[in-house]
Amino acid sequence: MTSAPLTPHPDRLLPADPGVRRIARALYAEVADAPILSPHGHVDAALLADDLPFPDPATLLITPDHYVLRLLHATGTSLDALGRGPAPADPRDVWRAFCTNWDVFLGTPVRYWFETSLSEVFGVTEQPSAGNADELYDHIDGQLRTDAFRPRALFERFRIEVLATTDDPAADLGAHARLREDPSFRGRVLPTFRADRYMDPGAPGWASALDELSASAGVDAGSRAGLLAALRARREAFLAAGATATDTGVLDAGSDPLAPAEAERIHAAALRGEATPAEAVAYRRDMLYRLAEMAAEDGLVMQLHSGVIRNHHRATLERFGPDSGHDLPDVAAFTRPLTPILEAFGTSETFRMVLFTVDETAFSREIAPLAGFYPSVYAGAPWWFIDTPDAIGRFRRAVTDSAGFVKTSGFIDDTRAFCSIPARHDMSRRVDAGYLAGLVAEHRLDEGQALVLAHRLVDDIPRATFRL
Amino acid sequence: MTSAPLTPHPDRLLPADPGVRRIARALYAEVADAPILSPHGHVDAALLADDLPFPDPATLLITPDHYVLRLLHATGTSLDALGRGPAPADPRDVWRAFCTNWDVFLGTPVRYWFETSLSEVFGVTEQPSAGNADELYDHIDGQLRTDAFRPRALFERFRIEVLATTDDPAADLGAHARLREDPSFRGRVLPTFRADRYMDPGAPGWASALDELSASAGVDAGSRAGLLAALRARREAFLAAGATATDTGVLDAGSDPLAPAEAERIHAAALRGEATPAEAVAYRRDMLYRLAEMAAEDGLVMQLHSGVIRNHHRATLERFGPDSGHDLPDVAAFTRPLTPILEAFGTSETFRMVLFTVDETAFSREIAPLAGFYPSVYAGAPWWFIDTPDAIGRFRRAVTDSAGFVKTSGFIDDTRAFCSIPARHDMSRRVDAGYLAGLVAEHRLDEGQALVLAHRLVDDIPRATFRL
Amino acid sequence: MTSAPLTPHPDRLLPADPGVRRIARALYAEVADAPILSPHGHVDAALLADDLPFPDPATLLITPDHYVLRLLHATGTSLDALGRGPAPADPRDVWRAFCTNWDVFLGTPVRYWFETSLSEVFGVTEQPSAGNADELYDHIDGQLRTDAFRPRALFERFRIEVLATTDDPAADLGAHARLREDPSFRGRVLPTFRADRYMDPGAPGWASALDELSASAGVDAGSRAGLLAALRARREAFLAAGATATDTGVLDAGSDPLAPAEAERIHAAALRGEATPAEAVAYRRDMLYRLAEMAAEDGLVMQLHSGVIRNHHRATLERFGPDSGHDLPDVAAFTRPLTPILEAFGTSETFRMVLFTVDETAFSREIAPLAGFYPSVYAGAPWWFIDTPDAIGRFRRAVTDSAGFVKTSGFIDDTRAFCSIPARHDMSRRVDAGYLAGLVAEHRLDEGQALVLAHRLVDDIPRATFRL
Repeated sequence: MTSAPLTPHPDRLLPADPGVRRIARALYAEVADAPILSPHGHVDAALLADDLPFPDPATLLITPDHYVLRLLHATGTSLDALGRGPAPADPRDVWRAFCTNWDVFLGTPVRYWFETSLSEVFGVTEQPSAGNADELYDHIDGQLRTDAFRPRALFERFRIEVLATTDDPAADLGAHARLREDPSFRGRVLPTFRADRYMDPGAPGWASALDELSASAGVDAGSRAGLLAALRARREAFLAAGATATDTGVLDAGSDPLAPAEAERIHAAALRGEATPAEAVAYRRDMLYRLAEMAAEDGLVMQLHSGVIRNHHRATLERFGPDSGHDLPDVAAFTRPLTPILEAFGTSETFRMVLFTVDETAFSREIAPLAGFYPSVYAGAPWWFIDTPDAIGRFRRAVTDSAGFVKTSGFIDDTRAFCSIPARHDMSRRVDAGYLAGLVAEHRLDEGQALVLAHRLVDDIPRATFRL
Repeated sequence: MTSAPLTPHPDRLLPADPGVRRIARALYAEVADAPILSPHGHVDAALLADDLPFPDPATLLITPDHYVLRLLHATGTSLDALGRGPAPADPRDVWRAFCTNWDVFLGTPVRYWFETSLSEVFGVTEQPSAGNADELYDHIDGQLRTDAFRPRALFERFRIEVLATTDDPAADLGAHARLREDPSFRGRVLPTFRADRYMDPGAPGWASALDELSASAGVDAGSRAGLLAALRARREAFLAAGATATDTGVLDAGSDPLAPAEAERIHAAALRGEATPAEAVAYRRDMLYRLAEMAAEDGLVMQLHSGVIRNHHRATLERFGPDSGHDLPDVAAFTRPLTPILEAFGTSETFRMVLFTVDETAFSREIAPLAGFYPSVYAGAPWWFIDTPDAIGRFRRAVTDSAGFVKTSGFIDDTRAFCSIPARHDMSRRVDAGYLAGLVAEHRLDEGQALVLAHRLVDDIPRATFRL
Repeated sequence: MTSAPLTPHPDRLLPADPGVRRIARALYAEVADAPILSPHGHVDAALLADDLPFPDPATLLITPDHYVLRLLHATGTSLDALGRGPAPADPRDVWRAFCTNWDVFLGTPVRYWFETSLSEVFGVTEQPSAGNADELYDHIDGQLRTDAFRPRALFERFRIEVLATTDDPAADLGAHARLREDPSFRGRVLPTFRADRYMDPGAPGWASALDELSASAGVDAGSRAGLLAALRARREAFLAAGATATDTGVLDAGSDPLAPAEAERIHAAALRGEATPAEAVAYRRDMLYRLAEMAAEDGLVMQLHSGVIRNHHRATLERFGPDSGHDLPDVAAFTRPLTPILEAFGTSETFRMVLFTVDETAFSREIAPLAGFYPSVYAGAPWWFIDTPDAIGRFRRAVTDSAGFVKTSGFIDDTRAFCSIPARHDMSRRVDAGYLAGLVAEHRLDEGQALVLAHRLVDDIPRATFRL
C-alpha cells in the first residue's frame, strides 16, 4: 500500500468562505513570518545551553508529549509501548506504534501540529502509516544527527525571539546564565518562577522541597516566615536572570489570607505531619494570596492556571508517574475565589495577573468580565485541552465582547515539544486571522484595523502583557 | 386559506457556503442510504413481535412523544387535550391541536423530524394547519390501515439493521425471543438492561420492584447480596437474548462503593422504610459502582445517562404521570464522581462506559478529556434536549479536539417515536457530513479521509462502541 | 494626523456568506424601521417629562454608561478621569479620555453601538481620536443645544413606541403621570416595579427603605405582613400607572417560602439588627416566592435577573458608588432554585416569568427547557455582558431547539444610555435576521416563514411576552 501524501495546504485553518478567506489570507500573510514570542512553555533551558543533538524521533516527538500519549492510550496502546514504562522501550517500536495508529488523530489538533511539523521541520512528504514507519524514522533520525537540527539551529530557524521556561524556585538557573553569557546565542531564554511545590503542605515532598529551597535561597524555609523570605529571595534571583513572570498551577483559585500566626501554626503542624486536609487547603490559599502580594511588590507577572485535577488514575500514576495523560479539567471559578487578591491588588499598577482556564465556560462568565474591569487582570489564551483551532475561535468570540483585544495575553504554546512550537504559533496566527477576517467581512472592523490588530496580537500584546 | 407546501429540501441541514455544501453533499450521499444501527432507544419489542397496525395518527405520532408535548404545553395546550389525561381524548382532536399549533415548532428539531417523517414516510405534501388537519389525519390514518405501514414493513423500509430496546431486568424478554425465533424477521432487536428501579431505595416502588425481580430471576432480591445476585442472573439472561449493553439513568454520577455490610444494613433499613435520604443516596451510588463491576465482568457496555431532574412539576406528575415533559437538565459532572469506577475499571479491557449528558458544558471539560485518556470511556452523542442539528455540531467541535472520532459513540436516536427513527438518523448524517465538509474546506482533512470517517461514523464506530 | 472615516456599513453584522447575506438583507429590510418596543430599561421618565436639553456629550454618553467605563478603567483610565469621582471632572476632559482610548474598544459591542449612534444620531463622520476629540465634542455639544436633540424629539426620531422604565415601589411615578396626561406626547412610558431594596434584610438601607415605602404606600411596612401589604398597594399603583411588569435582581433564584410566623420573626430580628446572614438569605428567598405569588394574583409579568455579584471591588464601591463597572457575573441556576415558584404557579394562567442570565451555560441547560415546558416561563434575551452580536447568535442557537421563538422575550436594551437605544435594537434586528437567514439557507425555514418570524420578533412577541 502506497502512503497518502502529506502536504499541508497553504490556506489551512483559514475560513471556508471565499470572501472571508481572501481577507484572512492577507491578514495571515502579514504575521506568518513574525518572530515567535513564547512567554509560557516547558522547554528545558539546558537543551539550548548544551545544544546537544536530539536523541531520536520517538524520544523527541512522542514519549514526552502527553497530548500524543493520551489519545494513543485511549485507543488501546499501552504507555509501556510508548516508552513511558519503568522498562525502556526501543524508540523505533514507539515510533511504529505512533505511525500505526496515526488515524486515531484524524481531526485533532495533535494531527494538525504533527502534519505541519513533519512537513515543515523535517520535510516529510507522506502521512505516517504502519508501512512507512521505519522509513520515516530513518529519515528524521538522519536529520537529527546533522548540525542543522541541533536545538540552537532550530531555535533560529523557528525565529524564536523570546522563550520562557518554567523553573522551580530552587533551580540554579545555570543554563539560563550560560545562554545569557554566550555571545554566540542571541535569543532571550527567560526563567519563570513556579512555586507550586511549596504551596500545599499536604502534598508529598513538601518538607523536602523546603530543604531544597533553603539551600538554594540561603534562607531557612523551615518556618512559614522563612519560606516567604526564601521565595522572595529567589524571585530576586529570577528577576536578575531576566524573568518577567511567575506561574502557579492550583486546583482552585481560592486566595483567602490567613493571619500570619495561624499560617505559621499550620506550617509547623505540617512539618510534624499533623496538618489536617482543611488546614492544608487554607495554607495553600493563603500562599496564593502571598504570591500575589509579592507580585504586587516586584512586578513579576502572575500567571494563574487553575482548575486541573492532577493524576486522576492512581494505578497509572504509580506505574508511569505524573504528566502521563490523566490530568483532567475541572469546573473553574475565578470571580469569587480571587476576591481577596483583587480587593487588595486589583487596581495596583505593579500587580498583573493572567488567568488561564481549561473550563471554557469561564471565558465569557468570569475571565473576560474581570479583565474588562480590573486593570491588573488579563485573559489568558486557551490552554492545554483547548489550545485548539476551534477553541481559540470560541475564546475570541467569548472574550472580545467584554475585554477587547488589549486585555488578552497573546498565544502561549505551553509545550514541552520543542519542534511543535512553530506549528502551534502558526495555528494561532491562522485562527486569529480568520477571526479578524470574519469581523471585517461583517463590517465590524475595517481591514486596516484588522491588520493592525493581527500584528499587535503577535507582538505588542504579548510584549506588554508579559512585560517582555 | 391554502396550505403551505411541505417539501423537504434535498440539501437541508447542509452548510450554506456553496463550496462547503458541495463537499458535504458528496459525503452525505455516501451514507444517506446506509443501514440504521440504533443502539439506544425506547421502542417496544412487542410492537415488532406482534406487528399489529398502528392505531391512529395521534396515538402514533403525538401523544407518546414528550418532545412534541412539551412545546405544545408550553404554549398553552393542555396535556389533557393532547391525550395524556386520565380521561381518553379523541385522537382526531389531539391531531387537530397539533396541526393548529404547528407554527410553535418553527425552527425546532421537532418540526424538522416531523417534516421529514410526514413527507418521506407518509407522503404528506402540505404543512399541517388548522385548515388541513382532518384531511391529513385521514390520509395518514388510511395508510396506517395498510400492510405497508405495519411495524415490520416500516422496519424494513427504514433499513433498520439493529434496534436496541430498553428493558427492565425483570422483563421476560418474550417479544425479543419471538422475534429471534421468527425466521421471517431478519432484523436484530436487542434488549438493553436498565436497572434504574433497583438503585434508589428511597424511590417509591423500590420494594415491590425487588419482588418482581426476585420472581423474574429466581433469586431472592430481599437482601442486598440477593439483589446483586438477581441482577447478575438477569444480565446473563439479557446476554443470552442478545443484549450488548446496559443503560443507567441517574441524577448524578456518584459512584463511591460502600462496604458490603453497610450496604446490606441500608438495604434492610430501606425495606423497613427507615433509610435516611443520605443513606439512600449512598446506596444508589454504591449500586452504580456495582453495575460497573458487573460490566467489567460480563462485558455489557455500560451506558450512563446522568444529570436529569425527573418530574419537576408535582401537579403534572400526579395528573399525567412520568415522561410527560417536565424532566429537566441539571448541571452535569463526571470526572470527580466517576473516580471510584475509573480507578477500578478504567483501564480494564472488558469494561466499557459511554457517557451521555444534557449539559453541554461537560463535553469539552469532562467527557472528551476522559474519553481521550481512558480506553474504557466513550463520548456519547448529544441526547434528548440536545440531539439537535446545532447541538450535534457543537458536540463535534467540542469533543473532537480531545477524543477524535473513534472514541465517540455514533448517533443514538433515544426515541419512542418509531416513525421518526429514519428522520433522526438522517439528521445526524447530514450534520456530520457538514462538520466533516467544514474540516475539508479548512484543509484539516482531505476529502478521502472525510469519506472514510463519514462511513465509520454510521457503521464501524457504533458497531465497535456498542459491541454489536 | 487625519482621522479615520466613520461610515457604518449598511450590511454590518449580516452574515459574510453572500447567499446568506442576500436573504438576511431582505429580512432585515422588513424590520429595520419597525417601531421600538423597549420593555426593559433604565432611562429616567423625568428625562422625557421635563424634556430639558441634555447637558453635554460626556455627561450624556460616557459618564453614566458602565459598559464604557469598565473597559476604559481596565486599560488604565481612572474612574476619576471619567467623571465618576467625588470631585467633578470637566466633561471635555472626560470626552478627550474616551476619544484618546477609542481603540481599546476595537471589536467590542460598545464600539459598535457608538459608531452607529455617533453616525446616525449625531452625523459624526470620523472615528474618535485624540486629534479630533475637541472637534467632535463641539459638534455634538452644538447639536445638543438644539430642539431637535431634546429627549422627546429624539424619542420620536428613534420611533420608540413603548419605553419601560425601572422604578422603586416607593417612587411617586409623577413623571409617568405627567407624560400620560400630556396630550402632546404620544409615546407609552411605563413604570416597572422593582422591589430589590426590600428583599434583603441584611443589606444596608433596608430599614430606611421600609420607612420610605410605608410613606409612599400609606401602609406600615414595619412588619413583614405590612411590607407585603405595602408592596401589594404599590403594585396596584404601578398597574394604574400603566405598568405591565416587575423586575427583580437577585444573587440567586432561591425561592423557598417560609412559614409566615418565621418570616415575621426574621423581619423583626432584622429591624433590631439581629438577623443572621442565613436568616437574611432565607427571608430574601421567601420574598422572591411572595413576589411570584403577587404576580400570579395581579398579572404583572415577573422579570428575574439573577446571577450577578454586585460591587466586587470594595475600594471602588467606597469611592465611586454602585454601578461603577465592578458588578460581575456568577454561575447561574434556575431549575432547582425556582422549584417552589414553579410548583405553585408554573401552570397558572396569570403568572408569567421571564428569566434572564449572564451565564450563557444556563440557556440550553435550564432556561430553554423550562420555557419549553412551563406555560408561564419565557426565555429572556441575552443581557448586560452578553447583549452582544455574538452572544445573541449563541442564544438563538442554544434556545430555539427547546423553546422555539414564541417562548423568547424579544430584545431588551436594558440601557441608561438613551442615545444608544436605536443602535441596540438595530443590532438585535440584524443579528436575528442573520440567524433566520442561516436557517433559510440550510432549508430549515422557508423565506416566507422567516419573514413572518422576523416581524414577530420585534412586534407580536415582545407585545405578548410583556403584555404590552
